[in-house]
Amino acid sequence: MATISDIGVSAGINILSAFVFLVVFAVLRVQPWNDRVYFPKWYLKGLRTSPIESGTLVGKFVNLDFRSYLKFLNWMPEALRMPEPELIDHAGLDSAVYLRIYLLGLKIFVPIAVLAFSILVPVNWTNNTLEKTDLTFSDLDKLSISNIPLGSPRFWTHLVMAYAFTFWTCYVLKREYATVASMRLHFLASEHRRPDQFTVLVKNVPPDPDESVGELVEHFFLVNHPDHYLTQQVVYNANKFSSLVAEKRKCQNWLDYYQIKYSRNPSTKPTTKTGFLGICGERVDAIDHYTSEIARISGEISTEREKVVSNRDAIMPAAFVSFKTRWAAATCAQTQQSRNPTQWLTEWAPEPRDVYWDNLAIPYVSLAIRRLVIGVAFFFLTFFFMIPILFVQSLANIEGIEKAVPFLKPIIEMKVIKSVIQGFLPGLALKLFLIFLPSILMIMSKFEGFISLSTLERRSATRYYIFQFINVFLGSIITGTAFQQLDNFIHQSATEIPKTVGVSIPMKATFFITYIMVDGWAGVAGEILRLKPLVIYHLKNWFLVKTEKDREEAMDPGTIGFNTGEPQIQLYFLLGLVYAVVSPILLPFIILFFALAFVVYRHQIINVYNQEYESGAAFWPDVHGRIVGALVVSQLLLMGLMSTKEAAQSTPLLITLPVLTLWFHRFCKGRYEPAFVKYPLQTTFA
Amino acid sequence: MATISDIGVSAGINILSAFVFLVVFAVLRVQPWNDRVYFPKWYLKGLRTSPIESGTLVGKFVNLDFRSYLKFLNWMPEALRMPEPELIDHAGLDSAVYLRIYLLGLKIFVPIAVLAFSILVPVNWTNNTLEKTDLTFSDLDKLSISNIPLGSPRFWTHLVMAYAFTFWTCYVLKREYATVASMRLHFLASEHRRPDQFTVLVKNVPPDPDESVGELVEHFFLVNHPDHYLTQQVVYNANKFSSLVAEKRKCQNWLDYYQIKYSRNPSTKPTTKTGFLGICGERVDAIDHYTSEIARISGEISTEREKVVSNRDAIMPAAFVSFKTRWAAATCAQTQQSRNPTQWLTEWAPEPRDVYWDNLAIPYVSLAIRRLVIGVAFFFLTFFFMIPILFVQSLANIEGIEKAVPFLKPIIEMKVIKSVIQGFLPGLALKLFLIFLPSILMIMSKFEGFISLSTLERRSATRYYIFQFINVFLGSIITGTAFQQLDNFIHQSATEIPKTVGVSIPMKATFFITYIMVDGWAGVAGEILRLKPLVIYHLKNWFLVKTEKDREEAMDPGTIGFNTGEPQIQLYFLLGLVYAVVSPILLPFIILFFALAFVVYRHQIINVYNQEYESGAAFWPDVHGRIVGALVVSQLLLMGLMSTKEAAQSTPLLITLPVLTLWFHRFCKGRYEPAFVKYPLQTTFA
Repeated sequence: MATISDIGVSAGINILSAFVFLVVFAVLRVQPWNDRVYFPKWYLKGLRTSPIESGTLVGKFVNLDFRSYLKFLNWMPEALRMPEPELIDHAGLDSAVYLRIYLLGLKIFVPIAVLAFSILVPVNWTNNTLEKTDLTFSDLDKLSISNIPLGSPRFWTHLVMAYAFTFWTCYVLKREYATVASMRLHFLASEHRRPDQFTVLVKNVPPDPDESVGELVEHFFLVNHPDHYLTQQVVYNANKFSSLVAEKRKCQNWLDYYQIKYSRNPSTKPTTKTGFLGICGERVDAIDHYTSEIARISGEISTEREKVVSNRDAIMPAAFVSFKTRWAAATCAQTQQSRNPTQWLTEWAPEPRDVYWDNLAIPYVSLAIRRLVIGVAFFFLTFFFMIPILFVQSLANIEGIEKAVPFLKPIIEMKVIKSVIQGFLPGLALKLFLIFLPSILMIMSKFEGFISLSTLERRSATRYYIFQFINVFLGSIITGTAFQQLDNFIHQSATEIPKTVGVSIPMKATFFITYIMVDGWAGVAGEILRLKPLVIYHLKNWFLVKTEKDREEAMDPGTIGFNTGEPQIQLYFLLGLVYAVVSPILLPFIILFFALAFVVYRHQIINVYNQEYESGAAFWPDVHGRIVGALVVSQLLLMGLMSTKEAAQSTPLLITLPVLTLWFHRFCKGRYEPAFVKYPLQTTFA
Repeated sequence: MATISDIGVSAGINILSAFVFLVVFAVLRVQPWNDRVYFPKWYLKGLRTSPIESGTLVGKFVNLDFRSYLKFLNWMPEALRMPEPELIDHAGLDSAVYLRIYLLGLKIFVPIAVLAFSILVPVNWTNNTLEKTDLTFSDLDKLSISNIPLGSPRFWTHLVMAYAFTFWTCYVLKREYATVASMRLHFLASEHRRPDQFTVLVKNVPPDPDESVGELVEHFFLVNHPDHYLTQQVVYNANKFSSLVAEKRKCQNWLDYYQIKYSRNPSTKPTTKTGFLGICGERVDAIDHYTSEIARISGEISTEREKVVSNRDAIMPAAFVSFKTRWAAATCAQTQQSRNPTQWLTEWAPEPRDVYWDNLAIPYVSLAIRRLVIGVAFFFLTFFFMIPILFVQSLANIEGIEKAVPFLKPIIEMKVIKSVIQGFLPGLALKLFLIFLPSILMIMSKFEGFISLSTLERRSATRYYIFQFINVFLGSIITGTAFQQLDNFIHQSATEIPKTVGVSIPMKATFFITYIMVDGWAGVAGEILRLKPLVIYHLKNWFLVKTEKDREEAMDPGTIGFNTGEPQIQLYFLLGLVYAVVSPILLPFIILFFALAFVVYRHQIINVYNQEYESGAAFWPDVHGRIVGALVVSQLLLMGLMSTKEAAQSTPLLITLPVLTLWFHRFCKGRYEPAFVKYPLQTTFA
């Protein structure tokens, strides 16, 4: 068991390393040659040009203004300065509301921490239960509920605190839901007129032998929405077409490169080879070659375009239908068109950049089967993912490698390499799996058939959170693989499960404190450094970049990454709510995480991330629902813990809490969720 | 344990008693003085007049045509003869689809029974496991799964049969859902034009200090539905007004009575007393008295009407808004009007006779709280209803009565009365509770705030089914009160519960066979006799009926009673599905129930029941959902049972079944449920 000073030392080290990260960041960000790594958002907006093109030769690469090094934490107030309406304008509502999740963490946990430290901690501390036992314990445990003797009336404090924390959390959640809902409605109403606001996506157009999809859609909507129908646009399957366009763009880029080269050095005409990667094959004049290539591809493009437009098989049974008014579009998106509810499905068209085109034409029955398959697959992924990893690990040991590639034996047998392989390889499979997990979940969501990137990310986030809840949260509390837990749980009674988990909670406080520092603090500090994009950008810059356009494409602003970021935050909400009553010592660490993350992500959203789509904060119901879920979990675990403390008279009062919380959730769902799902007709919107 | 011959004797007795019921019915229904009891539907339709008014004096009261007694089962083919479209026309879609539930039972269970008796029964019968044990057993048990030795490969038969039964049930369910959905859509589309098809009910109109509710509604819809709005009708709180109208109608009835009396006997002018019930008070001329009373009340009515119309407090924040087209009404009912999703709530207006007026003006927050209160109340009602009944029983014993009313002591001490009290009173409290349970559940639904009778009945049916599932089905299998079961269940593991229940199932087959015969067969046969309405009608006829109108009102056609009838059918579906694999001997009894009930209820719907409302078979999703639920329960219990039979290798295959069934349910929900919830805009409907 770690003592307070142990934790203090560990915290010190972590704070120091985070500080080092921040200093390195402060140095790197003011170097001109990193400008595109740390300020890509401004480049994309066209508000910043490369500082390399101006100034002295040295000043192009190294910042010589030493004052800028002294003010190395300046970015923090800068990041906080931009007011929210401007931020919405700058980076979209999604980003602005995403930041509010961190703020919500602070709003919930700061008052809870104050209350816990002024009431719960003294109540826990002024006992001597642990001292009387033979168990080894630390000062940290003296602050937790473990220090209260069995059946003590002091448990009433924890009960009252559980109620207070629940009410406070629900109050903040409700206020936040109301704010975000009104922000969303205001945002939707005040946007500039865009075609997609007048447009509905129609899926599952039934096949008709006499009419093309376009005619069918036109006739259907002329009959059913005669006063409002404007026009329709069918969806084409243009995969070949788009690959031709990409090829043309590539040739254009090479042409630009050689033309610049030639204009700088008009004496030698640049040449290239026609074979693989320009390495082998006949040597030809580069500019002529690419000019003729572009002409050839352009010809192909126009024939392909005609083929797509005229070929009936290339038309997918989906269309974008535009109406004369937003009112009509809102009406059509919310109503059922056909008597058969699996045909003529309408929904508000996603933004053009939000559409996931591959999934527009999946038939209804196929969708239902895909959901079942993915549901089962996710169940096995969550509970049985250790099995293939253990299998890979058993292969990837030294003997296995020596058997597969015997000629490497002398190298492998070297002591340094051997120890690296032994220490590194077994963990590698697991690490690789965890790194690829978000991508795996994203592929699953895509297979499931959602039609916009925003819903894909939301779905992946839900799955990622469930995975983390089972494998990180429960997996750390009750040691053992998820499958062993599942096996335990289905053989335990409904009252036994919260007990088993609840009893272990106070013992795992130290572990989770370390987890928060390593995963949370260091993760956030690492995020601002952008080490991976930095390295990749410079590698690309040295080896691949030929033209200014290439340099722009080498710049990788990245996105918020809702599908990985939000589940991580939710894990901290869960830890905070679970430990608030049991071991309040965890709270300051979580608060520090939320504060640091808020500043860092605000900076990144302003300066770095590029918005991929704008869903108008459609993810908030998910965020709200998961926090409420965490609250219920914390209440059930507290109930389990208390029932082992011979404080049985508190059980009825503790059962009431989740009932009230779930009722609160249903209330909020009815009151606010429609704002995120439906589209009110009231004229403020039109 | 009952032997087959025991069951045979019991079945014989029950069939005989049902037969007696039918004979009595056949005799009673052809008597002219019962005509209004057994054919009220035709009176209400105006297609039948009283046979008492024609024919000879004796023929008025006793049917002397002996041929009609001989053809005493004639009503059965008659009941089956009316084709379904005519039935829909005659009694509404609700009734016609309600009958299809019984047919569905036959469609599901007849093939299952054939398969079970040709495969499962021989497989079970040709073992001698039970003969080898010391247990007492009967031939009945030899037909059940109990006769298969532990770990026998014969269990594969049961597994395959479980799959076959599931697929067959799902197939029939899906076909039926499709049929009912298309029947509903056809019905809605082909109805005569009625105002409520163009009308939307708007609830939760927000208060406005400057405008009345009517103006506010008019302005809101003129702005938001400018092209389609026709008119609005606000809802008044007119309780006093309607009680005045009722009083006027009563006086009118008395006036008619005295006028008829006077016209038959013009020599004496009828008189009445002005006091209580016409017994005491001043004697006055009856006709003059009631004429003046009617005039007075008419005056009061008109002042009250003006008061209601002009008084702002009498206007409720709800209105019926009519549109120019069905398209516009469908659009408005399905879309969200206001940015605040708790205001301006729209839904398709129920039929005028379907509206439950008392609940039209409940605010949103109050609704949410009511749902919570009723949810908790229903939980306690289901699991703890025995506590007050035990308390009443403890009071209602002989000593308690003697203490409360000592002067009755000599009577109570008489032997006959004492034994009656001792045998009767303890059961009385429980019996009374069970009789009043549907009314209690209906009151709960009303308190919850549903606005139409059809939804009230659907909600009560759901609750009644849950109550029966827990207290009748589980309560009979695992003896003990619901609370004891609950206590057991939360202390058992998830795998243990199906085992505990599953193991007891084969042993309870005899009990449930008796239950089906007594509750099902006798209940249905009793239903056709209509003993209660018969007695009440004749009592009223003798004591209360003064005018022809009174006689019409004394006639109580009753309704299908969805809230009590459907849960009863569902219990038989549950029993059939659970026992299909375990003890197929139950199936013939259930099939006989469905067949008898189908004929009887078809007769009653054609000749007796008066339709209270028409919801267009909106209850079908509930019916479908409960049968699927019963299927899943049967699969889980089979899994529990099999796991005790050392047939563990079957578990993975058995787990697949509920997963597939639940997926099937979701598929059907997406595919067919919208037809019952939404209103397609396609022009066939307009």
